[in-house]
Amino acid sequence: MRQSRLFTRTRHDAPADEVSKNAQLLIRAGFVHKEMAGAYSFLPLGLKTLNKVIGVIREEMDGIGGQEVTLTGLQDPAVWEATGRFDDEVVDVWFKTKLKNDTEIGLGFTHEEPITRMMREHLLSHKDAPKLVYQFQTKFRNETRAKSGIMRTREFIMKDLYSFAKDEEEHLKIYQQVADAYHRIFSRLGIGEDTYQTFASGGVFAKYSHEFQTVTDAGEDVIYVQKSRKLAINQEVNNDEVRADLNVTEGELEAFDASEVGNIFTLGTRFSEALGLMITGEDGEKVPVFMGSYGIGPARVMGVIVEKFSDEKGMVWPDEVAPFKVHLVGLNLEDDAVREYADGVYESLKDNGIDVLYDDRDARPGEKFADSDLMGFPYRVVVSRKTMESGAFEVVTRATGDVRKLSEEELYRDFDSVPE
Amino acid sequence: MRQSRLFTRTRHDAPADEVSKNAQLLIRAGFVHKEMAGAYSFLPLGLKTLNKVIGVIREEMDGIGGQEVTLTGLQDPAVWEATGRFDDEVVDVWFKTKLKNDTEIGLGFTHEEPITRMMREHLLSHKDAPKLVYQFQTKFRNETRAKSGIMRTREFIMKDLYSFAKDEEEHLKIYQQVADAYHRIFSRLGIGEDTYQTFASGGVFAKYSHEFQTVTDAGEDVIYVQKSRKLAINQEVNNDEVRADLNVTEGELEAFDASEVGNIFTLGTRFSEALGLMITGEDGEKVPVFMGSYGIGPARVMGVIVEKFSDEKGMVWPDEVAPFKVHLVGLNLEDDAVREYADGVYESLKDNGIDVLYDDRDARPGEKFADSDLMGFPYRVVVSRKTMESGAFEVVTRATGDVRKLSEEELYRDFDSVPE
Repeated sequence: MRQSRLFTRTRHDAPADEVSKNAQLLIRAGFVHKEMAGAYSFLPLGLKTLNKVIGVIREEMDGIGGQEVTLTGLQDPAVWEATGRFDDEVVDVWFKTKLKNDTEIGLGFTHEEPITRMMREHLLSHKDAPKLVYQFQTKFRNETRAKSGIMRTREFIMKDLYSFAKDEEEHLKIYQQVADAYHRIFSRLGIGEDTYQTFASGGVFAKYSHEFQTVTDAGEDVIYVQKSRKLAINQEVNNDEVRADLNVTEGELEAFDASEVGNIFTLGTRFSEALGLMITGEDGEKVPVFMGSYGIGPARVMGVIVEKFSDEKGMVWPDEVAPFKVHLVGLNLEDDAVREYADGVYESLKDNGIDVLYDDRDARPGEKFADSDLMGFPYRVVVSRKTMESGAFEVVTRATGDVRKLSEEELYRDFDSVPE
Repeated sequence: MRQSRLFTRTRHDAPADEVSKNAQLLIRAGFVHKEMAGAYSFLPLGLKTLNKVIGVIREEMDGIGGQEVTLTGLQDPAVWEATGRFDDEVVDVWFKTKLKNDTEIGLGFTHEEPITRMMREHLLSHKDAPKLVYQFQTKFRNETRAKSGIMRTREFIMKDLYSFAKDEEEHLKIYQQVADAYHRIFSRLGIGEDTYQTFASGGVFAKYSHEFQTVTDAGEDVIYVQKSRKLAINQEVNNDEVRADLNVTEGELEAFDASEVGNIFTLGTRFSEALGLMITGEDGEKVPVFMGSYGIGPARVMGVIVEKFSDEKGMVWPDEVAPFKVHLVGLNLEDDAVREYADGVYESLKDNGIDVLYDDRDARPGEKFADSDLMGFPYRVVVSRKTMESGAFEVVTRATGDVRKLSEEELYRDFDSVPE
């Protein structure tokens, strides 16, 4: 894309009321816009980034047999009353609203209840199990405070997967498959090394659930880590009993601030019993379906990536997340011959399937380099009178600052594979 | 995809409270699920269909230079108070809700106000114009009645495009570009012939706006059409003055029930003036931006397609909209040799890039054919002991019932191009 066409501008300062680093940088770079506290719109570069995160998650969910749906935001009170969760005393993050006939309805903060009810029409026998159903859908949560930028908002897209198994044994296999998929996701998104599958409190049907916690100074949680075993325990369950279960001593554990980027829960039969999701078991009797739920917030992951990798100059996007792989910065474009040549380099990069933003604006070099650093795509390539005359290109890796000299042919063909 | 893996089931009867034909068929086929009146979830086949519609619209919006964003559902009252539209007496479809601090906020039913405010940070000069910004975003509208299935719901994805021009002349060019794109969209979606760009009331800044109205018995509107000129007038403005403007007589016009699938509006400077979206004009003075807005509801289009093309056996999807192009119906699969052969045909179709749902279920042929007719993909191909022995395949076109006999090679390579 040509940067002169992009409608967003960068800005030097973040809004005064914006305290989180991720939102400050994302706003300055024109990736997001703050509508009000805890509500951010995604502008072209931000939406492209978010969609890259979503794309990785979708591939991995499809890979384990997930089937995609989209449930509604508006929530029928009846189905939540059946589980006792419509009550604001039980769930304190509801946004409620009213139909014209004065019926109070909710805005979904999660979807266990409606998806369980919906599955009653489709899941009839143990032969229909297991099934994995997921969505990327907008949740609403009436948070009292919202000051972590896009990491904790009142409205956000969540990937929520629900699993439906004929029994606990089948469920546990799915649970492990999802955990494995989550590890692949966070690894592809560039935060695998610092993301720990963390023991957390389990609820009625399981002693533990698991959170995926990414170590970052911006984290709202504290986890205790035994690094060599890649073992982590959430602060809330870091007690003698749990450490004994996990065969670890207090002295071995190191505390880190961390942000929860995913979670996986065994729900058991709590929802299927309350809502009548029964299947015919192998012996012909009706049994409740054994369920699990599994969440990832793509925008929260994006916020964590900004927090972890940014430097004093701006953001640093991992390859699979960056809205563009290459930032082609054009200089000396006031010279028609250089502009024609630079346009040609841009077209050739595109023709070779390279996702490139081309800074073809009339702007000073210093402004272009500052914007490029702020936006933080993986590679920056300058095209100018000098490159036109020498035929040599400098490729700067944003994350490391390393520079490679490449010929035009190498640039189009294989600059990824040329060592830094 | 293998139908045995799909979690949805078809059903013989629609829910008793569902009065619209589109929702009855979509529910019976497992495409959508009714959560409550005016709120439908999209299940895998329905979501795939909706995404095809969205994909066509996105391509055409990108084609005219649209840049995609996603604004929030939660709406800051301040920006709506500036235009007088937060008042329930002025706008009667608001859903309102409250933050923890008791501030009343809205759920967006459209986005002129927030997008105008947001553009203040990015659009500074006439040189920045024109810009086209669009989204596929969930609107909430508190409709008093909701009984047209997925054609009129309280929550729906809308494609809303907003244009920002330096003056009226630039605006009118964009307006025409969008109108042309809309014609291409409805043509690709299979409803071009029966969709009329229809004169409707204009508002403050233009005598007319335009609706795109598709003739269907399920339509909520009435339009008056002069067919040979492809001219149409909405009932609300079908008066002497308008007919004189358009040089048409009452006698030439034919009345049709129709459903509004899109609309295009000249907004002028109403929003830019109220919200201070000013740019530096060519002579250095500050001038308000000249705006337009342009909507399409993808689910409404989907509903109209069901209403228009369905027959007594079920739905009939046009090629660009169908969730799958081919329904491969396997028979005699209890015979391992036939199943192995049928699996091979399925894999070969996929390998040749053909989007196919393979009915590999253990079910009676009559049930499979009934489900296939109900789901309504463009082509049905039976694979069975008979086709295995003969090497000949019958391809049935759902819309016409026409049958072609093809060899296995023709099936994989070019069944589209073999005449019926």
